[in-house]
Amino acid sequence: MIPNNILRKWAANEPVLNGWLSIACPFSAEIMAAQGYDCLTIDLQHGLVGYEMATMMLQAMRASGVTPMARVPWLDPAAIMKVLDAGAYGVICPMINNRAEAERLVSYVRYPPNGVRSFGPTRANLSAGADYGTHADQEVICLAMIETAEAFANADEILSTPGLDGVYIGPADLTLGITGRRYRTGFDREEPEMIEAIQTILRKAHQAGVRACLHNGTPAYAAKAIGWGFDLVTISNDVRLLTDAARNSVETTRRLAGAASAAAADASSSGGY
Amino acid sequence: MIPNNILRKWAANEPVLNGWLSIACPFSAEIMAAQGYDCLTIDLQHGLVGYEMATMMLQAMRASGVTPMARVPWLDPAAIMKVLDAGAYGVICPMINNRAEAERLVSYVRYPPNGVRSFGPTRANLSAGADYGTHADQEVICLAMIETAEAFANADEILSTPGLDGVYIGPADLTLGITGRRYRTGFDREEPEMIEAIQTILRKAHQAGVRACLHNGTPAYAAKAIGWGFDLVTISNDVRLLTDAARNSVETTRRLAGAASAAAADASSSGGY
Amino acid sequence: MIPNNILRKWAANEPVLNGWLSIACPFSAEIMAAQGYDCLTIDLQHGLVGYEMATMMLQAMRASGVTPMARVPWLDPAAIMKVLDAGAYGVICPMINNRAEAERLVSYVRYPPNGVRSFGPTRANLSAGADYGTHADQEVICLAMIETAEAFANADEILSTPGLDGVYIGPADLTLGITGRRYRTGFDREEPEMIEAIQTILRKAHQAGVRACLHNGTPAYAAKAIGWGFDLVTISNDVRLLTDAARNSVETTRRLAGAASAAAADASSSGGY
Amino acid sequence: MIPNNILRKWAANEPVLNGWLSIACPFSAEIMAAQGYDCLTIDLQHGLVGYEMATMMLQAMRASGVTPMARVPWLDPAAIMKVLDAGAYGVICPMINNRAEAERLVSYVRYPPNGVRSFGPTRANLSAGADYGTHADQEVICLAMIETAEAFANADEILSTPGLDGVYIGPADLTLGITGRRYRTGFDREEPEMIEAIQTILRKAHQAGVRACLHNGTPAYAAKAIGWGFDLVTISNDVRLLTDAARNSVETTRRLAGAASAAAADASSSGGY
Amino acid sequence: MIPNNILRKWAANEPVLNGWLSIACPFSAEIMAAQGYDCLTIDLQHGLVGYEMATMMLQAMRASGVTPMARVPWLDPAAIMKVLDAGAYGVICPMINNRAEAERLVSYVRYPPNGVRSFGPTRANLSAGADYGTHADQEVICLAMIETAEAFANADEILSTPGLDGVYIGPADLTLGITGRRYRTGFDREEPEMIEAIQTILRKAHQAGVRACLHNGTPAYAAKAIGWGFDLVTISNDVRLLTDAARNSVETTRRLAGAASAAAADASSSGGY
Amino acid sequence: MIPNNILRKWAANEPVLNGWLSIACPFSAEIMAAQGYDCLTIDLQHGLVGYEMATMMLQAMRASGVTPMARVPWLDPAAIMKVLDAGAYGVICPMINNRAEAERLVSYVRYPPNGVRSFGPTRANLSAGADYGTHADQEVICLAMIETAEAFANADEILSTPGLDGVYIGPADLTLGITGRRYRTGFDREEPEMIEAIQTILRKAHQAGVRACLHNGTPAYAAKAIGWGFDLVTISNDVRLLTDAARNSVETTRRLAGAASAAAADASSSGGY
Repeated sequence: MIPNNILRKWAANEPVLNGWLSIACPFSAEIMAAQGYDCLTIDLQHGLVGYEMATMMLQAMRASGVTPMARVPWLDPAAIMKVLDAGAYGVICPMINNRAEAERLVSYVRYPPNGVRSFGPTRANLSAGADYGTHADQEVICLAMIETAEAFANADEILSTPGLDGVYIGPADLTLGITGRRYRTGFDREEPEMIEAIQTILRKAHQAGVRACLHNGTPAYAAKAIGWGFDLVTISNDVRLLTDAARNSVETTRRLAGAASAAAADASSSGGY
Repeated sequence: MIPNNILRKWAANEPVLNGWLSIACPFSAEIMAAQGYDCLTIDLQHGLVGYEMATMMLQAMRASGVTPMARVPWLDPAAIMKVLDAGAYGVICPMINNRAEAERLVSYVRYPPNGVRSFGPTRANLSAGADYGTHADQEVICLAMIETAEAFANADEILSTPGLDGVYIGPADLTLGITGRRYRTGFDREEPEMIEAIQTILRKAHQAGVRACLHNGTPAYAAKAIGWGFDLVTISNDVRLLTDAARNSVETTRRLAGAASAAAADASSSGGY
Repeated sequence: MIPNNILRKWAANEPVLNGWLSIACPFSAEIMAAQGYDCLTIDLQHGLVGYEMATMMLQAMRASGVTPMARVPWLDPAAIMKVLDAGAYGVICPMINNRAEAERLVSYVRYPPNGVRSFGPTRANLSAGADYGTHADQEVICLAMIETAEAFANADEILSTPGLDGVYIGPADLTLGITGRRYRTGFDREEPEMIEAIQTILRKAHQAGVRACLHNGTPAYAAKAIGWGFDLVTISNDVRLLTDAARNSVETTRRLAGAASAAAADASSSGGY
Repeated sequence: MIPNNILRKWAANEPVLNGWLSIACPFSAEIMAAQGYDCLTIDLQHGLVGYEMATMMLQAMRASGVTPMARVPWLDPAAIMKVLDAGAYGVICPMINNRAEAERLVSYVRYPPNGVRSFGPTRANLSAGADYGTHADQEVICLAMIETAEAFANADEILSTPGLDGVYIGPADLTLGITGRRYRTGFDREEPEMIEAIQTILRKAHQAGVRACLHNGTPAYAAKAIGWGFDLVTISNDVRLLTDAARNSVETTRRLAGAASAAAADASSSGGY
Repeated sequence: MIPNNILRKWAANEPVLNGWLSIACPFSAEIMAAQGYDCLTIDLQHGLVGYEMATMMLQAMRASGVTPMARVPWLDPAAIMKVLDAGAYGVICPMINNRAEAERLVSYVRYPPNGVRSFGPTRANLSAGADYGTHADQEVICLAMIETAEAFANADEILSTPGLDGVYIGPADLTLGITGRRYRTGFDREEPEMIEAIQTILRKAHQAGVRACLHNGTPAYAAKAIGWGFDLVTISNDVRLLTDAARNSVETTRRLAGAASAAAADASSSGGY
Repeated sequence: MIPNNILRKWAANEPVLNGWLSIACPFSAEIMAAQGYDCLTIDLQHGLVGYEMATMMLQAMRASGVTPMARVPWLDPAAIMKVLDAGAYGVICPMINNRAEAERLVSYVRYPPNGVRSFGPTRANLSAGADYGTHADQEVICLAMIETAEAFANADEILSTPGLDGVYIGPADLTLGITGRRYRTGFDREEPEMIEAIQTILRKAHQAGVRACLHNGTPAYAAKAIGWGFDLVTISNDVRLLTDAARNSVETTRRLAGAASAAAADASSSGGY
């Protein structure tokens, strides 16, 4: 089985840079897979991606060598097992609130006797290797999202769940969950209360011997998170990258063209169009 | 029929900012349509887009009010008429080399007696208005690409073709066509020979009373082209925007994280992980 | 955020006319969105529609201004949250049988602290507005289907669930549920027992201060339901409309042609073919 | 090879009722295939259908026993041969203007030595029978559209093309072609000039020993065309059927509800809502 | 309603040969449907198939007369009811571990009062017959997979569940479940312990008066299973059939070409290339 | 640019084994790409594949390292250039009948000044390398099909076309073209007349210094062709491989089960079921 790059980076104590795919398109996934990320996560929860597009995105990313991950929509064995069979090297599961849910999550990701995953890695046998069944429990990563008040309160019992590789923090939901609607929604929290919460989860994860991962909106915050000790940082997503790049290019053109056409107006004032 | 924004901008002597869609995806098209472009062109030639995806991209762009255009793969009546029936407000046709080809192009875009377009605007009747048949010949734009040595030599006869709204310059092909492989491929030419060629076409177009449009790689060049007098400028495309934005975000994170982790290494040197 | 037309109509005490989409196709959805309905519901339960087609149908309907709704396949947080993130302005959830299920339904539709919906309105931010997060809990409609014997018995406790906007009656299932197989399946019930049941739910809904909605097979029954006081009526669906229209056109042609050819046979009896 | 029902009906001197598919959707095709048409034509010209959707529509129609036909977008060997390989039992080709084009059309539909069709009926071997290659030249129908002024003038030479089964009249284009924009666009011509033109083609076709087919908007006109002697009549299409049926159902509901609510207002005037 | 061939074969005491579809493609499904299987199961669990592809595969298989079945991804009412509404004549549900789960499975497959299936057979009404609602509870097959240690221990209580038609054994999971990782994964077990387990389930099923079905990797094992008394045997799947056939053809060509080119080398040794 | 394996094999005087993809499916393409072929050709002519599926199949095959090729539907610049931009390393063009057509073919495959290919390798820049534009004219293969009587007569002038890498023989069409319907259709010709024709083309190709390629139905014939000196042999296709494998497995099971059940009948004759 082709090894999981994330685990190798973690074994070498290197932080992992994760990209995020919310556009349901094999070609945008193939483009993203060529830009230097260590791994890419297909977002089947909030992304516009369903199962069938996800399989084609996994195919389009395969040649890149970037580790493919999936955020599943919910703690649902069907969704988790299907995306693993399709070749994802790990799942990020939203809204894990307590030990029981964390244990169910692990059980869906691992084969008996470690869990209850059903055997049939139809595409993984091809994309990851014919010996997938033997190594999958070691190579496939299982990450629980801590992003509610309940989960935050239960962080210790979640983090100590056997078989869990780590936690993934969704700052938008965590902020809503812990503080209600006191602050704006979104990533890259600057409120001391939220920074404290995020760092608390990070510290507890490392105390429990598991990995801590953070979703970020910008390179600056992602880099800061690495500085804090996060093991994996997600940097924005394809929707925001394309949105911002397009908007900037239009605005820059309008601004520059305003100056240019003003200059041109001067230069051509004696002539006619 | 909903009027063509491009024509209204041109009537007001305002330059038009065009975006370019090479990713075959309704959602990326919908995202691009919200970023401030005046019009968006689906590239059925070099983009990864086929007819069926193009129709869904047209649907996804409809609510934005951005004028939808299409670059067709070749001077082919089937491709041209189908994308117009699907609701495109104009076609950009590659590799028009002489008057005869320009006349065929016009004929495919206009209904009899102006041309030979077959009547059946199945989706345009819905998206552009039930009176589409009455106004389409006025509202639909027909642009010929001048991008070969032959076309450059025949510019005058192409530009004077009745019914042609203008020309669209593809600098990559034009450079290959005129200068062979003396220069790098791509847009945003800086060679005096190519600038001269581009400005020659611009000047001849305006002398012939038609519009001149230019494909650009950057806002800076697009703004310069507006300054030169171009009536429509394309700014990059979705593939390059996403590629550059993603690559920059990864590189910036790595660079910042390098500094951050160095600082963190100092700060945590007395502690353990 | 673009306001929900349904709520505005209800605020003005006007009944809402809802169309129903069971064909998995962006173009048929775009066609339906131009025919005068106040809102259109994509049926992800009994329709042939999956999540990925639903997103493209939502895109194709966007320009029409018709309020997009979705019937989800089951009380499943993944399905509910995904279709809302994709831009649906409301969900109709089948088979809500008791208060606990109704509360879970509401919780999936509302953000904390009103519910447990996870934050990430990837397309809704674009289609409904960038301030979607602030207004979604007010603008998004949550309707529970009462369509089993258990639900009918528990109608009061369901109808008083905080955060529920109303109930939607599925007469086919309700008839099966309450009366077993005594009557034919389908809509537009004429049995006194069923009319009484339907009107009982309507009355209790209004007593509880929430809205009552009814699925109908024909304009006649839909109009009757409005007369009874229903706040939203669904009229047939795209499958039945197309089926009936096609069948009628074939039958009419055969009938008319029979007469015509008989007449023609007389007229041409002296000539040859 | 499963026989072509159209040919059998024609052999029995029975008129053929054809339906028309402009919606790119396997399920709407499957629905249409159950409504009693003798044959169904997938419109790859003005319909929103591309090749890939057409193949899935052919699959969805297969069980019905309705003869599948295709209108191709243009006189293009690739489009014609691909849709035949996919299982279409005939092609309707638009804009055939003269004998040379008619001969090219026939050549694309027939195997050597009758024509130049390339051998490889990948799906037809499955859907039509393993002996497809032996019988295809007899069972596959080739219809040229006469719909321009040039074609009308050249009707005799087109109609006598060996191997051509008949002509198909597109009244919208024929009217544009012959009369310019003097009349409204569309089907079901009532102008004496156009009726004369249509009947001229019909008469010449029968004189030449080939079939005459007409596109119609309504059962009434289709029946009239049968009465005139047309061998195949198309009745409306899926887009118009769905459009009209949906619009009528909305309008009828509003009208009936207006009466009903007026009555209800009277009845409930003493009570409160 | 078109009768279920499986039930008729079983009524005649004939074993049923089932094919297995793991490739998400209507055309490969249509090909498989022409090869002589009695029924074909679309694998929505381990296959690469999602709901939308499954519907198009059902359409492509319809003309063949082969009974269409579906393995659903999990004991999930949405997945089960949707695939039945789309026309599947039965479901195979994985990982049924006890009586409660078996009862829930049955309830999702049967209409009230036999179960809780919601009424709306949108495509089944078309593909199976307009009287589907009346006969579905008799004609649709419900099979529970026994494939865990827990299920094996609870076999008796599962097998006696009212409304269950039989059990389907997944040997790969059953081996993992009962014996952990002592043996290789996969089908066609030869270990006495596993043969005993498989035959125990078979015997108990027949004692309980329900059917026993087995997944097999090869014709040899499938035939052996028939000999043991299994009522339905699955033979390999499309992925393995294509894999093995392609690999064999490449290897055979290389082997034969080695011999041929050696011979050719001798023959042409005096000449030049 | 990633080198073309076919050219490297040819440079080493090794025959190339080509597989053939007629099923429009990324997953079947990914499976085929893992079975040991040197290259795989997506058949856009007789296969059920359109452009959009072809791009996804190219993505799914990318990781395998197998050289991707495409058979285009016709001598059409749009189809040829689009599939090259999407990453195909070569085109096989059907029905090339004379020198003029061969020259047009070459011109569509090569950039100026070698041809008229338009520049814009949107996906090839990603899948083949960012220096694609510099090397494409050397690495991309251009093969003309000789498969008509006219082409056979003009073989010399076709084979000497500058820029053509070789010819590809389609035995089914060639047999139809040369001999009409005297023989069965299909591959693997055994008639002396056809063997002579095939070997004549092979000999002339080698005399002209270009490559000769043959489409075969079986490993035996492919190996024989290699022995004759063919430079590339295609072995069957995915449709036939799956068809034969499935049919054989059903027939084998029925045959073995007949024996087994006969034996079982004996063994159990004293017992009861």
